[in-house]
Amino acid sequence: MTDKNEMHQKRQQRLKEAVDERISKANEQRGILIVNTGNGKGKTTAAFGTLTRALGHNKKGGVVQFIKGLWENGEKNLLEPLGVEFHVMATGFTWETQDKASDTLACQEVWRKAKQMLANSQLDLVILDEITYMITYGYLDLEELLIALKNRPNHQTVIITGRACHRDIIELADTVTEMRPIKHAFDAGIKAQKGIDW
Amino acid sequence: MTDKNEMHQKRQQRLKEAVDERISKANEQRGILIVNTGNGKGKTTAAFGTLTRALGHNKKGGVVQFIKGLWENGEKNLLEPLGVEFHVMATGFTWETQDKASDTLACQEVWRKAKQMLANSQLDLVILDEITYMITYGYLDLEELLIALKNRPNHQTVIITGRACHRDIIELADTVTEMRPIKHAFDAGIKAQKGIDW
Repeated sequence: MTDKNEMHQKRQQRLKEAVDERISKANEQRGILIVNTGNGKGKTTAAFGTLTRALGHNKKGGVVQFIKGLWENGEKNLLEPLGVEFHVMATGFTWETQDKASDTLACQEVWRKAKQMLANSQLDLVILDEITYMITYGYLDLEELLIALKNRPNHQTVIITGRACHRDIIELADTVTEMRPIKHAFDAGIKAQKGIDW
Repeated sequence: MTDKNEMHQKRQQRLKEAVDERISKANEQRGILIVNTGNGKGKTTAAFGTLTRALGHNKKGGVVQFIKGLWENGEKNLLEPLGVEFHVMATGFTWETQDKASDTLACQEVWRKAKQMLANSQLDLVILDEITYMITYGYLDLEELLIALKNRPNHQTVIITGRACHRDIIELADTVTEMRPIKHAFDAGIKAQKGIDW
């Protein structure tokens, strides 16, 4: 074996030891609260990728989308027929509607569905997509969300997505990732595209 | 209308104008190169979320996973039966094998599949999952990857995932997101879980 190969093997051995040690220390088993936040791409798609993974292991999932447009929705098209319960806030993007009273009503309506999901022990994974904006805009009470999250079934994992997530939700979360934009095709004049951006 | 409501409406109006202006400036339509990098969670799941979206709009996708474990794979279970071409590097995590020669062979074998996908105009979306490590470890030639990316069909979008992405790939990419870990359940002693972590 060459020296270079030996060095590679030693480095991989150390990596293996570090990974094995971390695995042996991780003993707790329960559902977790995941937050995907930040200004970059991938917050919602990472949530749906995790749902795909869960469904592939015969787990059950539910989705509430709080601020999606009214256009056709690729992930809904694919996942709803596969048994995923889906609710989408009726008014679309709030900057299209510009009416706080009707947005609040629309939010409260899907929030009722979300609360039912957070109390449903049949569900292994619940996605609350873009719910952070509901707190920011004052359409949804932070305390009510925190209580529903804390009281959910022990095995249930929840994923919250959206920019500027409130610090109390970050505090409660187990895994938090900030999606940081390094470059964005849209800024370079490339159109948002069906099947990629929605 | 109350003053507060008026302020909210004005703010939303400005937001709408800014969004509309950006949309009107984005005219180019072509496949893009997306890179999900950084040390946080969500790189691979965001890629699969985008694939879910694409499939929901009847687009065709292919996946090559370069460094997955040999265990059961949730996303493969779900997506392969839906018509997604899937190839997984045979040796699993390199820190389990610790053999550079056999890892290089295994990498080259799936890279051949990846190159076919990058030349296949039938495919709208190709995921090269964790391919960044293949460059880092020297299992795959950077120049060969860059050429295959540059020569792919114009409408084809490619997603590259993995930590420490080489700067030449970042340079070529249209959209780059860094997933930054803020908090990780694993560090708090919570076991990695089927249906969430793989």
